[in-house]
Amino acid sequence: MAICEVLGRPVPRKEGVAKAAGEFVFPTDVVIPGMVVGKILRSPYSHALIKSIDTSAAEKMEGVLAVVTAKNLPVPIVVYGQDQADETILCVDKVRYIGDEVAAVAAVDEETAQAALDAIRVEYEVLPAYTDFETSIQQASVEGAPLIHEGKARNIALEIHNVRGDPERGFAEADFIFEQEYTTSRVHQAYLEANVAVAHYRRDGRLEIWASTQWPARLREDVARILGLDITRVRVLQTQVGGGFGGKFCPKLALVASVLSMKCGRPVRIVNSLKDDFEAGRPFGSSRVRVKTGVKKDGTIVAREVKTIMDNGAYSSSGLSCLVVACTRANNVYRCKNVREDGYSPYTNLVPTGAYRGYGNQVLAFALERETERIARSLGMDPAEFRLINATQAGDVTVDGYVIRSCGLAETIRWVAEASDFKTRRPPEGSIRYGKGMASAIHVSGNIISYKHWDASGAIIRIDQDGKVELFTAEPDIGQGSHTILAQIAAEELGVPYEDVYVRPIDTDVAPFGVGAVGSHVSTVGGNAVRVAARNARRELEATAARMLGCTPDEVEIRGGRVRRRGSSERELTVRDVAFRYYVDNCIPLYARGSWRSVGGLNPETGLTNPSSAYSFATHVAEVAVDVETGKVRVLNYWACHDVGRVLNLAAAQGQIEGGVAQGIGFALTEEMQFEGGRVTNADFLDYKCPVAADMPAIHIHFVETNDPLGPFGAKGLGELAFVPVPAAIANAVADATGVEVTSLPITPWRLLEAMRSGTRG
Amino acid sequence: MAICEVLGRPVPRKEGVAKAAGEFVFPTDVVIPGMVVGKILRSPYSHALIKSIDTSAAEKMEGVLAVVTAKNLPVPIVVYGQDQADETILCVDKVRYIGDEVAAVAAVDEETAQAALDAIRVEYEVLPAYTDFETSIQQASVEGAPLIHEGKARNIALEIHNVRGDPERGFAEADFIFEQEYTTSRVHQAYLEANVAVAHYRRDGRLEIWASTQWPARLREDVARILGLDITRVRVLQTQVGGGFGGKFCPKLALVASVLSMKCGRPVRIVNSLKDDFEAGRPFGSSRVRVKTGVKKDGTIVAREVKTIMDNGAYSSSGLSCLVVACTRANNVYRCKNVREDGYSPYTNLVPTGAYRGYGNQVLAFALERETERIARSLGMDPAEFRLINATQAGDVTVDGYVIRSCGLAETIRWVAEASDFKTRRPPEGSIRYGKGMASAIHVSGNIISYKHWDASGAIIRIDQDGKVELFTAEPDIGQGSHTILAQIAAEELGVPYEDVYVRPIDTDVAPFGVGAVGSHVSTVGGNAVRVAARNARRELEATAARMLGCTPDEVEIRGGRVRRRGSSERELTVRDVAFRYYVDNCIPLYARGSWRSVGGLNPETGLTNPSSAYSFATHVAEVAVDVETGKVRVLNYWACHDVGRVLNLAAAQGQIEGGVAQGIGFALTEEMQFEGGRVTNADFLDYKCPVAADMPAIHIHFVETNDPLGPFGAKGLGELAFVPVPAAIANAVADATGVEVTSLPITPWRLLEAMRSGTRG
Repeated sequence: MAICEVLGRPVPRKEGVAKAAGEFVFPTDVVIPGMVVGKILRSPYSHALIKSIDTSAAEKMEGVLAVVTAKNLPVPIVVYGQDQADETILCVDKVRYIGDEVAAVAAVDEETAQAALDAIRVEYEVLPAYTDFETSIQQASVEGAPLIHEGKARNIALEIHNVRGDPERGFAEADFIFEQEYTTSRVHQAYLEANVAVAHYRRDGRLEIWASTQWPARLREDVARILGLDITRVRVLQTQVGGGFGGKFCPKLALVASVLSMKCGRPVRIVNSLKDDFEAGRPFGSSRVRVKTGVKKDGTIVAREVKTIMDNGAYSSSGLSCLVVACTRANNVYRCKNVREDGYSPYTNLVPTGAYRGYGNQVLAFALERETERIARSLGMDPAEFRLINATQAGDVTVDGYVIRSCGLAETIRWVAEASDFKTRRPPEGSIRYGKGMASAIHVSGNIISYKHWDASGAIIRIDQDGKVELFTAEPDIGQGSHTILAQIAAEELGVPYEDVYVRPIDTDVAPFGVGAVGSHVSTVGGNAVRVAARNARRELEATAARMLGCTPDEVEIRGGRVRRRGSSERELTVRDVAFRYYVDNCIPLYARGSWRSVGGLNPETGLTNPSSAYSFATHVAEVAVDVETGKVRVLNYWACHDVGRVLNLAAAQGQIEGGVAQGIGFALTEEMQFEGGRVTNADFLDYKCPVAADMPAIHIHFVETNDPLGPFGAKGLGELAFVPVPAAIANAVADATGVEVTSLPITPWRLLEAMRSGTRG
Repeated sequence: MAICEVLGRPVPRKEGVAKAAGEFVFPTDVVIPGMVVGKILRSPYSHALIKSIDTSAAEKMEGVLAVVTAKNLPVPIVVYGQDQADETILCVDKVRYIGDEVAAVAAVDEETAQAALDAIRVEYEVLPAYTDFETSIQQASVEGAPLIHEGKARNIALEIHNVRGDPERGFAEADFIFEQEYTTSRVHQAYLEANVAVAHYRRDGRLEIWASTQWPARLREDVARILGLDITRVRVLQTQVGGGFGGKFCPKLALVASVLSMKCGRPVRIVNSLKDDFEAGRPFGSSRVRVKTGVKKDGTIVAREVKTIMDNGAYSSSGLSCLVVACTRANNVYRCKNVREDGYSPYTNLVPTGAYRGYGNQVLAFALERETERIARSLGMDPAEFRLINATQAGDVTVDGYVIRSCGLAETIRWVAEASDFKTRRPPEGSIRYGKGMASAIHVSGNIISYKHWDASGAIIRIDQDGKVELFTAEPDIGQGSHTILAQIAAEELGVPYEDVYVRPIDTDVAPFGVGAVGSHVSTVGGNAVRVAARNARRELEATAARMLGCTPDEVEIRGGRVRRRGSSERELTVRDVAFRYYVDNCIPLYARGSWRSVGGLNPETGLTNPSSAYSFATHVAEVAVDVETGKVRVLNYWACHDVGRVLNLAAAQGQIEGGVAQGIGFALTEEMQFEGGRVTNADFLDYKCPVAADMPAIHIHFVETNDPLGPFGAKGLGELAFVPVPAAIANAVADATGVEVTSLPITPWRLLEAMRSGTRG
């Protein structure tokens, strides 16, 4: 491992000052001359035919510049979808959920736009609706049951049936078989900034979009494809993102703003309310998971069957990818070789589902790690020991074909077991019961299924005449601190101070491609691309410095912004000197490119897909206090041990884990979107309960550094994995404290009291 | 010469649609959240000591965010100047002209800012002022005369004394000696958009500037140096330019807006009124030129002495460069080897002078070409013949050291002589007299004295996955159509359709360095850089295509966006196919760099500086009608023949000439800034008379293509030369029509009648 000058240092966040000073530009801050207000008319019905839309009154209103429906779009209707094509920009002849986009207007101000929406008359013929996925999945096999999408054979958006090894033989060999069913609720990513888009279709045919998207480069491609434009005619300027967590992938708002702008020739801004984002964002689907596990007496897991159903909602956004991840990911934590994975994503007449930090992994982690703990206790084994017996290790190729080049799973289990004194419990106090629960997890560092089986990133480094470095990347910082990390990687590789690296806000006209903030891709795949670009830039600096120093490029050493002949103290230059010389010699600043593409993909021999070049591992322990009289659960202490390969920035890594624990507490204990007849009834942060600072436990964090051979400076992904095991660890702790089965999330007081009353023992 | 696919085609202007649709963003259109209004307090005196400035009342006003004077600048005071350092951002202890910047405020709105200016109390001690340059130059040799700049020995900003060959011997050998004195008036560049600057000093220490500057890259360097910032901390975003013509180089407004933004932490916009730009812009200086010429009987010019005085104004902006150009340029039209060039740029208490299309060349062209015609007629020679005898030719190294690699001067003389039927005159009609006048000129194609003796440009070409081309340049389009030309060059060199090339608006964070729209640099030096970048990009396309076609890169032919193996019709690809393959293979779009540096500079043997790699030539003929009763001059017909090396875009080239003729008519006949006691009295377009459409003659244009070996596709500069000979040609025509000497511009009716009355015969 190279000696690090920049990595590991507690450098300030690149965007810290701007954030603190309020200089961050969110899309609501973007002002373009002539910009007008866009607003969307949404369906009031879960499922209905559109018999007619009369926009004539709206069109005649003073100050109304454009009214669009599917009938008068300025572009041909394209059926699109992130995971599967089943959606259009505006509803063509049917609405499929309450919130579905029926029409949109552009007007000079908010009031006029609202008045215009109110003036649009839509005649609906209401249809029977599937307002929960259980009904939908039951009806899916009924001949002649109403379809949400005509043209589809059934109301199932995706089915998965994987068989690895020989599950039947595995179960036959098992000494014990465990089986249980788990459910999770529909949750919202609960970012603070609702979706906003500004679009300006210019008369020269170029479309400019400002959006707080998680994948600016991909948004460019999506918008271009759906609107039928050349990719380079679309320019996406990523504004700051007020939280994403998987909820900022959908191109809908950008598309509606674009067609309005095409219609009226003015820049158009659409600002969703939080209610809009609850009703028509892309929240995370509810699920039912049935797990069957075969175990030998010695604790070896020999067979597993997992049947997962996850609500897709009315259209396919990221929900199907989440099902794919859910069906596979968690089965790779342990070495069980015989696995059956069945998955179903039924359509419902509910808001389409999207991704959420972990992309479905958290759902299966909850089910499987609950089972892991239940099985261990049933066998009379220490859960840590049971995990260690089965734990995946470096050198393994897992049941789903993941190539494990580095693995600190066992160390993470050992650390949390010891740090949390896992075997010891506090005695009850009055109605308070204490418990501890453990959970392990695996996650990717970039995922080739995120984007056309092509998990790649490019970077450009510019070193100008003053020796300062500018980094161009399309990998966004959505608050996770990735631009700080990428700047550290560039600085480390170049041998310049971190402060000398500037990361340019993303503009797809300038930045190369990058997949974006998805699948824990940015620091690893994006980081590798930055490292390659920086290495190429350094070589050019070395060549110039060699001429100045009278030595060979190999002899040049660049560290901390200083340049010298290695081993010589004779003459010292600065990077500024060398960059200026380069500039004068070449009449252009130094530009260097770099790109990196994830190692992985389909293994033609096994037919299995290795989705990532590196895998991160974590084990968490939660300690909870449960008031058995009120059902109130409180997380007291939390231990999180992560194998991230290499910690690039300790503060940022710790921050990721703290955030992940907070979101995990919400997912485990309080968060749940509630529906009545297909309508969200708690579409605000008063009624949708996220954890607050007072709900946070003491968090004890430790990192295992396994130095992955394919990670930048050994690093692997962290963002999603910080969250994935949390609900399982908490649920295990609650089961431990109360002795009852915990099979449904969130563990609300009501549910817990009900479980304790019904006497389902764990 | 290569067969051209794109060059010469009548392609539409790149910015045409946006301009027609009103989508152009001028700095007044820039809106940044939190932006406030900046305003400048200007000196009411031509010359005065600042005894005190009391800003306390202004500072206390509600809505006032910052008040700056030289006493409380947020940066150390730096004395700067474009050609010579003698100016500060705000006046330190003295004001030197009416309009000089004394203080500035930032406030929430225009009214508050004005009220704050009104509340600033300045105590002045008025000093004697030099309100014309004649007084200034006379006093310059008087011991103890008051100085405008303390610390300078005299009130002369620059003196030039060049001796080439042996002028004394030349005059001794001459058969005839001619001597005359000419004057020109102070004129304004009369662009429609007054100067505007927006500056945002961000809390992270980065300064962003939006300005309609002629040299964004240079503005970045100027601002950084004067404010003491690293160059890369300053970002200049060039907005559209509502006319420049040499008048948009000054960093003053950007500097004042920057210090205000530093003070108040908000983005600040300063909008000059047209009056501000007349009073405190950088208009073009008035001049007095004395010419003495020695001629042999056969018409050979054997000696010349030129003494040029040009008003510098209160500070040195581009006025000194104009003097340098004036002293040298016009002496290179003819082959005279014995030349004395004396130049003086006196300080005055008038608004500082700047550049104007031709950079002083038009002043000397007026004097020398008037002399040329006067001498020819005195010798009884045809002026065209006289010119041809002396004309510079290809292969020459001129008296000032210009290396002439291509020269169509003789052809231009012959063409206009014939096309205008130069020897024929219309007979008088009543009080109307008709006349024709000719004038020749030379000009640079980029000038190494424009920027640190380093006339360079860089370009970047990006070809994205859809095969479309994006061009990054720092060479601005200030309305002259340069981005159209640069796109044509890129398309031609790449072998793609012109429509597929997009030229990105200039942002110094992204664009490489380019000197800017100065010295007819953009199409030639900038064009060469673009051509190199495009060639490098084409080579990468060829390498990829070769792999796809199974041939060598040399065999690949790219034309019109189609790619094939040369001579084979077997398989045809598109640039889009190849670019997509490149993108997939490399995980990054194709980026290629190019740069070009002008050939020229100091010849150590002769001590002479060859300022440009290529020289353009032109000869014009004007036909005028003069009403000898009213003194009114009307230009009836105009012939302009230009050696531009190669016409890259016929419409754009013709447009340049039409614009040059229009401005030349103004300079010749009507334009004149008038002063009373140092104050401009005609600071608007009602009183400052520019020609209008009705004043335009029929213009007959012809191009001589000499295919310069160093020009991009043979092209040379045109922008300035279109204007340079116009005043001389018109003055010659008026002299021809009236028979009187025309020695002063503009030729107002009053001046002409006065000349006719006084009977000064030509």
